[in-house]
Amino acid sequence: MDLFDTVKFDANGLVTAVVQDESTHEVLMVAYMNREALQQTLQTGKVTYWSRSRQELWVKGATSGQYQELRGLAVDCDGDALLVRVAQTGAACHTGHRSCFYRHVGAGTTLEVVGQPLFDPKEVYRK
Amino acid sequence: MDLFDTVKFDANGLVTAVVQDESTHEVLMVAYMNREALQQTLQTGKVTYWSRSRQELWVKGATSGQYQELRGLAVDCDGDALLVRVAQTGAACHTGHRSCFYRHVGAGTTLEVVGQPLFDPKEVYRK
Repeated sequence: MDLFDTVKFDANGLVTAVVQDESTHEVLMVAYMNREALQQTLQTGKVTYWSRSRQELWVKGATSGQYQELRGLAVDCDGDALLVRVAQTGAACHTGHRSCFYRHVGAGTTLEVVGQPLFDPKEVYRK
Repeated sequence: MDLFDTVKFDANGLVTAVVQDESTHEVLMVAYMNREALQQTLQTGKVTYWSRSRQELWVKGATSGQYQELRGLAVDCDGDALLVRVAQTGAACHTGHRSCFYRHVGAGTTLEVVGQPLFDPKEVYRK
């Protein structure tokens, strides 16, 4: 059973990737891979996505320095989602938060920000 | 900041839900919620999805008995993914595996099944 025979890329050629910190088990983010991004991730060990907004391959950390080293990969029962276990440098989220899931539902449906950003996006993403 | 002002449902009215076991931190599955499923989940505490294959609300466990009790909910930075923390009865996957991500990439791109099913789907899903 081969990964590339099992993964079902959608009509846009993408598969959902759930990214989990290998050591803390925190869910860091959700992103998307096409076949090339998945191949490049496996070949280089640096986790690579397809950016839907920029329509290009996106080596996570190439701009921000917040790389993700591949530590493990699993595919779900119906082949349309990947679980990517990583060693995360710094923070996964472009806001500077460790995880993109930094807004938690508190009382009722009110969102509360949990934790502090680890970096200032203005510093990290300036050209 | 309110959850329902923050979540961005896609063209099909759905948002991606990543489901994590509250106690083990295992990622159990990826599914989808529409507005009604999200509201019902918050109101009942029993995690409810929109089934894309059956095109109906899907109270997880209603058929199998493998319920998910809601323990926490977070939304990601761009509002198009939810992290649902649950107490999982038995197994999340319809195959009987605890997690839908039971196939791990081993040598090269070969998939290896990790762990044993906790139930026999033929027993659980028979009518």
